[in-house]
Amino acid sequence: MAHKHGHGRERIQFANTEDKQEFSKYPTKAGRRSLSRSISQSSTDSYSSAASYTDSSDDETSPRDKAQVNTPGSSDFCVKNIKQAEFGRREIEIAEQDMSALISLRKRAQGEKPLAGAKIVGCTHITAQTAVLIETLVALGAQCRWTACNIYSTQNEVAAALAETGVPVFAWKGESEDDFWWCIDRCVNTEGWQANMILDDGGDLTHWVYKKYPSVFKKVRGIVEESVTGVHRLYQLSKAGKLCVPAMNVNDSVTKQKFDNLYCCRESILDGLKRTTDIMFGGKQVIVCGYGEVGKGCCTALKALGAIVCITEIDPICALQACMDGFRVVKLSEVIRQMDVVITCTGNKNVVTREQLDRMKNGCIVCNMGHSNTEIDVASLRSPELTWERVRSQVDHIIWPDGKRVVLLAEGRLLNLSCSTVPTFVLSITATTQALALIELFNAPEGRYKQDVYLLPKKMDEYVASLHLPNFDAHLTELSDEQAKYMGLNKNGPFKPNYYRY
Amino acid sequence: MAHKHGHGRERIQFANTEDKQEFSKYPTKAGRRSLSRSISQSSTDSYSSAASYTDSSDDETSPRDKAQVNTPGSSDFCVKNIKQAEFGRREIEIAEQDMSALISLRKRAQGEKPLAGAKIVGCTHITAQTAVLIETLVALGAQCRWTACNIYSTQNEVAAALAETGVPVFAWKGESEDDFWWCIDRCVNTEGWQANMILDDGGDLTHWVYKKYPSVFKKVRGIVEESVTGVHRLYQLSKAGKLCVPAMNVNDSVTKQKFDNLYCCRESILDGLKRTTDIMFGGKQVIVCGYGEVGKGCCTALKALGAIVCITEIDPICALQACMDGFRVVKLSEVIRQMDVVITCTGNKNVVTREQLDRMKNGCIVCNMGHSNTEIDVASLRSPELTWERVRSQVDHIIWPDGKRVVLLAEGRLLNLSCSTVPTFVLSITATTQALALIELFNAPEGRYKQDVYLLPKKMDEYVASLHLPNFDAHLTELSDEQAKYMGLNKNGPFKPNYYRY
Amino acid sequence: MAHKHGHGRERIQFANTEDKQEFSKYPTKAGRRSLSRSISQSSTDSYSSAASYTDSSDDETSPRDKAQVNTPGSSDFCVKNIKQAEFGRREIEIAEQDMSALISLRKRAQGEKPLAGAKIVGCTHITAQTAVLIETLVALGAQCRWTACNIYSTQNEVAAALAETGVPVFAWKGESEDDFWWCIDRCVNTEGWQANMILDDGGDLTHWVYKKYPSVFKKVRGIVEESVTGVHRLYQLSKAGKLCVPAMNVNDSVTKQKFDNLYCCRESILDGLKRTTDIMFGGKQVIVCGYGEVGKGCCTALKALGAIVCITEIDPICALQACMDGFRVVKLSEVIRQMDVVITCTGNKNVVTREQLDRMKNGCIVCNMGHSNTEIDVASLRSPELTWERVRSQVDHIIWPDGKRVVLLAEGRLLNLSCSTVPTFVLSITATTQALALIELFNAPEGRYKQDVYLLPKKMDEYVASLHLPNFDAHLTELSDEQAKYMGLNKNGPFKPNYYRY
Amino acid sequence: MAHKHGHGRERIQFANTEDKQEFSKYPTKAGRRSLSRSISQSSTDSYSSAASYTDSSDDETSPRDKAQVNTPGSSDFCVKNIKQAEFGRREIEIAEQDMSALISLRKRAQGEKPLAGAKIVGCTHITAQTAVLIETLVALGAQCRWTACNIYSTQNEVAAALAETGVPVFAWKGESEDDFWWCIDRCVNTEGWQANMILDDGGDLTHWVYKKYPSVFKKVRGIVEESVTGVHRLYQLSKAGKLCVPAMNVNDSVTKQKFDNLYCCRESILDGLKRTTDIMFGGKQVIVCGYGEVGKGCCTALKALGAIVCITEIDPICALQACMDGFRVVKLSEVIRQMDVVITCTGNKNVVTREQLDRMKNGCIVCNMGHSNTEIDVASLRSPELTWERVRSQVDHIIWPDGKRVVLLAEGRLLNLSCSTVPTFVLSITATTQALALIELFNAPEGRYKQDVYLLPKKMDEYVASLHLPNFDAHLTELSDEQAKYMGLNKNGPFKPNYYRY
Repeated sequence: MAHKHGHGRERIQFANTEDKQEFSKYPTKAGRRSLSRSISQSSTDSYSSAASYTDSSDDETSPRDKAQVNTPGSSDFCVKNIKQAEFGRREIEIAEQDMSALISLRKRAQGEKPLAGAKIVGCTHITAQTAVLIETLVALGAQCRWTACNIYSTQNEVAAALAETGVPVFAWKGESEDDFWWCIDRCVNTEGWQANMILDDGGDLTHWVYKKYPSVFKKVRGIVEESVTGVHRLYQLSKAGKLCVPAMNVNDSVTKQKFDNLYCCRESILDGLKRTTDIMFGGKQVIVCGYGEVGKGCCTALKALGAIVCITEIDPICALQACMDGFRVVKLSEVIRQMDVVITCTGNKNVVTREQLDRMKNGCIVCNMGHSNTEIDVASLRSPELTWERVRSQVDHIIWPDGKRVVLLAEGRLLNLSCSTVPTFVLSITATTQALALIELFNAPEGRYKQDVYLLPKKMDEYVASLHLPNFDAHLTELSDEQAKYMGLNKNGPFKPNYYRY
Repeated sequence: MAHKHGHGRERIQFANTEDKQEFSKYPTKAGRRSLSRSISQSSTDSYSSAASYTDSSDDETSPRDKAQVNTPGSSDFCVKNIKQAEFGRREIEIAEQDMSALISLRKRAQGEKPLAGAKIVGCTHITAQTAVLIETLVALGAQCRWTACNIYSTQNEVAAALAETGVPVFAWKGESEDDFWWCIDRCVNTEGWQANMILDDGGDLTHWVYKKYPSVFKKVRGIVEESVTGVHRLYQLSKAGKLCVPAMNVNDSVTKQKFDNLYCCRESILDGLKRTTDIMFGGKQVIVCGYGEVGKGCCTALKALGAIVCITEIDPICALQACMDGFRVVKLSEVIRQMDVVITCTGNKNVVTREQLDRMKNGCIVCNMGHSNTEIDVASLRSPELTWERVRSQVDHIIWPDGKRVVLLAEGRLLNLSCSTVPTFVLSITATTQALALIELFNAPEGRYKQDVYLLPKKMDEYVASLHLPNFDAHLTELSDEQAKYMGLNKNGPFKPNYYRY
Repeated sequence: MAHKHGHGRERIQFANTEDKQEFSKYPTKAGRRSLSRSISQSSTDSYSSAASYTDSSDDETSPRDKAQVNTPGSSDFCVKNIKQAEFGRREIEIAEQDMSALISLRKRAQGEKPLAGAKIVGCTHITAQTAVLIETLVALGAQCRWTACNIYSTQNEVAAALAETGVPVFAWKGESEDDFWWCIDRCVNTEGWQANMILDDGGDLTHWVYKKYPSVFKKVRGIVEESVTGVHRLYQLSKAGKLCVPAMNVNDSVTKQKFDNLYCCRESILDGLKRTTDIMFGGKQVIVCGYGEVGKGCCTALKALGAIVCITEIDPICALQACMDGFRVVKLSEVIRQMDVVITCTGNKNVVTREQLDRMKNGCIVCNMGHSNTEIDVASLRSPELTWERVRSQVDHIIWPDGKRVVLLAEGRLLNLSCSTVPTFVLSITATTQALALIELFNAPEGRYKQDVYLLPKKMDEYVASLHLPNFDAHLTELSDEQAKYMGLNKNGPFKPNYYRY
Repeated sequence: MAHKHGHGRERIQFANTEDKQEFSKYPTKAGRRSLSRSISQSSTDSYSSAASYTDSSDDETSPRDKAQVNTPGSSDFCVKNIKQAEFGRREIEIAEQDMSALISLRKRAQGEKPLAGAKIVGCTHITAQTAVLIETLVALGAQCRWTACNIYSTQNEVAAALAETGVPVFAWKGESEDDFWWCIDRCVNTEGWQANMILDDGGDLTHWVYKKYPSVFKKVRGIVEESVTGVHRLYQLSKAGKLCVPAMNVNDSVTKQKFDNLYCCRESILDGLKRTTDIMFGGKQVIVCGYGEVGKGCCTALKALGAIVCITEIDPICALQACMDGFRVVKLSEVIRQMDVVITCTGNKNVVTREQLDRMKNGCIVCNMGHSNTEIDVASLRSPELTWERVRSQVDHIIWPDGKRVVLLAEGRLLNLSCSTVPTFVLSITATTQALALIELFNAPEGRYKQDVYLLPKKMDEYVASLHLPNFDAHLTELSDEQAKYMGLNKNGPFKPNYYRY
């Protein structure tokens, strides 16, 4: 799945003209993942946004030029304004309420301190949810230094709250490119402390260590990476024989995949369409391009609300599934004239072409749930004969010479990240997976993991799931000894073969 | 259904202490219906809000004190700023695209001008959608004078656009109470023009005419009323023998009811919860109090998205329906401790009591989809031992001494009107119904309607539906002569007996 | 709804050629309702069928010619074989387990004996379920005499069980036309006993009394009728001013209607198609003609199992509902070539014409859920160029000259009655409704009911529902005094206005 | 998945007391898969059953003792009655209409004859559907000899039709154990013909060749096995280093798995329950033990029809899926008293214990959709204090001393195979998969497959799916060259990585 592809930081090192342009084209939404609270800010009056407004207006000094000290007296951090710590603490506390799995992990493992001795350098979005993760790692015995994987997504008050409690954080909202790498460097390159674990989201931290401090890898026991992009790079390194420590791909764990795609998109397609267009779903003719997990989620939700949904597919197995699930399988060009909504989720490029956009009916809504901004040929719409009219944030009317309007959402970028929110519960799944991957890699006996990329062991995947069951008051059944023997299973799992499809 | 009960203008005339208080308690949401665009303004950057911001900041003069003239030279209107007409025209044009039923009615009836000679005085929300209605009435031959039924809901630029084309409009956003009645008076009391039809939404216009200009009723052929409140008053007048012209209750037409309740709430419950709380629906335990049309809509949608839904009912027939639809029927007190979300839609009062609020679990979300603000005993929460914390617009955390938080949405007012939008399609159903009711009453032969309150004739109800079918590319089948005879039906309808339940 | 129209006994009195023919055409399925157990007999080995087989082979004497005495010594009955009473008793006991509402009514009302003094003559199907009804009436104080409304549907062993306990029953499976009227006559025309209540299903008993013993009506307090046909006749009598006692139409009670149509058909469409054709529903293109309650039930079920469903409608309101529920609204001729299954439920005639049958694709399945056997033009298929091949019971392949096969189910008769079963729960709803209607009419104060046809009072409709809620462990909420006052309702109901649509 | 475990032939060779007993306990349902038509026979009047009845009554001679010759003059076969060939041909022709994928494969590959030179010995159920497979193999160039994998499932008239066209078939309904092995032997051990491919269903043929004619394996290019049992044995052979040719496990192909489990059970759970108990699903409290593919299918269908479903799970990932899909996750013992229906689909043993059966409420229905007959502890019910009463075929009432009845279906064996049918479409998926596996193994270049067990290559899995898409008029989209390059895919597939979960 492609939801983690982004258009900001992670491409900076390639620094060619095309990427630069792309970067500057989307100045306000650079992140690969726009997190719950940060999106909320644009439309609601949360604490954080209140705080943010304040500091953005009254303080133009770069954090790098400010001398700040936290209450315990440390200045080993760099945030927008340490005084916002109290605001940030409230945000973290609210997030904790929805992340009981992490809190539960904290409690279960706190006695044994499984991360005692771990020195973790992290590079992720810095939000209330990540703060819950970081403070869990600390509670389990780790020392952490942290930086942001995205120049826009940092919640300044949360960074302040972390710094206040002694976590060296280097991040603020609105970093420059230079700031970005400076922050990473300050995390890695510090006197008297050397990381032995890396938690990365996008691969920029890993890239920097490879480039500047390769000797650090002598002590590193493993890398945990959660983005599609970062994982892709690790596999390339591995293929090229250049991966020098074990790495864990947490992006492809079963639990995380199901939540990031099927369950999350089932809700966010409705939310994204509703917030941007106030469309009524009942009776609408909708085509969903691609019937993978994301497409399945979209189709299920839209059908349930009375839309008439058809799909396109290139893969006959997925196409047959769509048939059995009650969706007509068509080619986009066959039905494009009748459609009220066109949704892409193929992971491919140019799935909706200019020729098809030309044939859409007046008022047709077009959006992308799949792969960064490649699926709809938006570039083809930036031509002189068409007029663009922005009618709301994230909503453009493209007007043809004959007056026909096509409604383009989020300029073809990911609708669910641009126009909806990621529920804290989904972030909890991810954070718990990251924490367990760190514990596993840090504690694995010599030889269990080689210099390669690994999927999360199924047993840990199951453990992530089990930590989230109490949220639903779900009661697992336990195998009796006799049953376990009959099934040839360990009573504590793993319960399924690796090829099991869920 | 109770969605049209409001707390603002329509009670002013009773002017007792209680009502006054209630009125002032909700200064920012006085309307009985918060319309699509007006709600959007709070969270999005539509044209209109841009316009509104401008004029609210640079112009503090009361419209009553301004001399304004439209392009044709008339000054028989009173709006905020006639220069906003162009902005308003664009809003109206966009609305027209989603109200093709009215446009279609305009075309079908334009030749015969069924409203030629009609002099309609109207009192409704003044929005782009209403403008499409008003301009349809004019196209069908009517003369119209218009005022607002709500002091906050007027879209100023739309009012300007109407005034510019010659419709005498008296309305602006943020009227005072005195302004409100002054505007109504200016509509009714004008030299050389006397209304023969009344279109009302809430009953204030009707009330004013009864009180100040009873002689007007000598010429009036009928009143069309669309709100629960207004209809209720008409039935009271009728009972009391004081209704002196025929009135048509368009609130209870089949089509309008289904759309206002079942279809609209099926979508707005999701939208309202999502926008306010970013909740993930999957696996949530939800209780819906009341399994009428609103409850059915809520339950269907939530179940479809993976919530585990149970219901409460007082009516055994509805309870049995809930069983057959797969919902457990419980008493609220039996399950309150397990619930993640509590939704009221009973039309009753004190459905959720303080005692039950006390027993809710931490994080439980409570909201009302049913009846104004009576269903949840919100007053009981305004007590010293509880802390209210506003975390977003429309979202309060009520904090118990032990730290438990209950999440109260919209302070117990209607969630779908406070935190969601009404799709234009639903407004189109209502507007078309109003237009047809006006045509019917105006053209009805002597004696068809007496001094009583009537439901829309089923055939016209069917006609409203048929005008909206092209939106879905739906093709009706026609009865053959033989089939019509066999069924004992007219080929053009009505197709069902009056007691048919749909 | 048209499910109770039949083609057998109830038309005998009109005795014209057409009806006679129709009657003889379907010798094995004469009944207007084929009840659960009686259908089961054809395919399963229930007790009753075992019993039936036995007696049909070893005993050819007409029951009218046999002298039989029950254990208490009475011979005031005429059944196939009184010795089967024990078999029948077991059938009744099993039925009682699924008819707890009647048992509950028996218990609640047993003390007060609300039918003490009632002398009920009844004419219904005689099955285990009816026996539970009859024995309930007796337990409530009534004296009953009973006969069958259908010459084929009697369960002989159940009749025997009733006779054994002292109920004068005159009925057996396989009566001749003469037997049929003889049995009715024996029920009505008996020394020293005169009926004061009539319970009829189809109107034959009522007809006989009108024709032969009009004086009986002097004592009769009311007629309870449950079939469409019988109700239709009563309305005709009423219109003609010939109805001389109050009659209650229990067919149109809310609860009964919903169960007979929506809930029952939602299940029986699947069952009927599966048992006859073993079709896999997933991915099938299905058209449902008619989107009333029956059509809604069919569509819901088929869509849920992965079929792609479209509908036809003549009524724009129902068509709009279909749109909002996610079904394309088409004309049959537009899509007939693509359909895998065609289902009629319009209540009309010639909905599927020969011309459309000609255009169906090979293997298309055609069946009727709506109105007796008029909906599909089956007669047009009985032409020389087409070959009929019976491939299973109730399944014919109609073979076109080019080899195309259309699969016709139940020769176009009602699929759900021919090829599925009616769940006991649905029969319990009907029986309870009948019992309450009898109690109401028998106990109503002078003047409450005139010589007219009445619907079941809403409060009793609600009571029927409430008696069935314990089956689902459903807990009703009770109104507080304050709430009842606020709503203007009696705490015990009725809870809805008469026009409420459920 | 466990659907292919059976209790008949495949265990004969182990011939211990326990197996013998089990075998004789279920004399009428010995097969591991009861196929569509053979099941139908018990309840419907298909051609075949008519035929079967005839020959069973008029001919008691063993086929082994009869001299029969087909029209071309060959006697190299052994069937019940070669004269039934015409009946059988009609059955095959009807099956062909639902197996267009095989017919299509026949046409596509007929020119190139990919099986020219193949000598296939097959051991499967012998039914109309298998006949379509066999005749496809012949059309593609193969020579075939065939025998039955089950002593009861052979459709005699189909065997006759195959023999008539020259396929040496050795099989009849009601073989003895000795007959069974004699038939296998006659297939393998024939003068002048030596098999080079094996198609097996259950492993008995493979077992026999291993035991009696191991030298045959020198020429054999591969084994294709479709049952769980047979596949299990092959893996054991492989582990033990005794597998001497490549084997293909077609049981675990994606397409076959989804259809055998999710899609098939979604329909058969309803069908199986309805045919046996006439239960109404609406409002029923149902517990489904196990939320794998079978459980997911059951839950989806029952929920859609208004049942209130909860589940049990041992695997936290599946449990979390159940939560997100809207099902409460409980332990069986917590809720057993409230349940109306208990369904097992865990693949485990003793999932429903006697203690739980003791606590069920009166009328509770218990059935198994999962693993042979181990899931419900039926043995514990065969104790003196309980009375068994057979009320219908496949339906037993177990009566407790206090009168409580539990309704046990199919004596705890697989409900979907005992009381429902397998749609021809599902059999078509399986047969097409078998054909493609044979083509692949027969044509694979030296070295592609070693002496191991292989899954069907994903590309062929996709091909099976694509051959079935025309049934749904589904139109696949093709990748453009540019898109294929972007995705790194071959335009003809495979389209997904091996670990993809669908």
